Amino acid sequence: MTAMEIGKEVAALCKQGKNQDAIDRFYAPNVVSIEACAMPGMERTQKGIQAIKDKNQWWVDNHEIHGGSVDGPYPHDDRFILHFKYDVTPKQTGQRITLDETGLYTVQNGKVVKEEFFYSM
Amino acid sequence: MTAMEIGKEVAALCKQGKNQDAIDRFYAPNVVSIEACAMPGMERTQKGIQAIKDKNQWWVDNHEIHGGSVDGPYPHDDRFILHFKYDVTPKQTGQRITLDETGLYTVQNGKVVKEEFFYSM
Repeated sequence: MTAMEIGKEVAALCKQGKNQDAIDRFYAPNVVSIEACAMPGMERTQKGIQAIKDKNQWWVDNHEIHGGSVDGPYPHDDRFILHFKYDVTPKQTGQRITLDETGLYTVQNGKVVKEEFFYSM
Repeated sequence: MTAMEIGKEVAALCKQGKNQDAIDRFYAPNVVSIEACAMPGMERTQKGIQAIKDKNQWWVDNHEIHGGSVDGPYPHDDRFILHFKYDVTPKQTGQRITLDETGLYTVQNGKVVKEEFFYSM
């Protein structure tokens, strides 16, 4: 599968809130995930599918998700970008906010081998 | 200047249609610009400020621009992403369309040294 084809599938699953399915189906076992900033109690970089699923689960467990949108994929050779907007209430603050960020995904041999998130806090 | 600071300035100038000013002020002399696809009669990769200004001028000359938006910057270390939507009529076709693309910018020593555009045709 090309970066564009994988990007379409990942975007469709993220729109349905099925991020864990996207990771299971389209991520390489040794995938690397890098945040723009460290999340509470976590390193910026996570390695391997299980670590990335754990980070995703932490995020879902710690946010009330009211809605969201996913724009893209925007492809360029073996990479694609997605643009996420999430209307959420972090459980720690109770304050409803819009999370607005982009993800840059690198594909090798038909699997995502790197995801990098771009945002400011 | 950090990638975030340069990203803010570049986004603000692009919103005003002052892309040429952004290139003059924030791009390194040896900057490289890479399209997702080759434009008509052009290579995918342009090198140097003048080549990039020429490409930009070609684009302005060949599109009637009705409006647009620039989201971002979304920073990650020495890079940032911008998300562009342009409501345009290419003069060649006369057919009004929305161009929806993202740009990934790499900063070194306070200047943009690489811009890569992500989109599908």
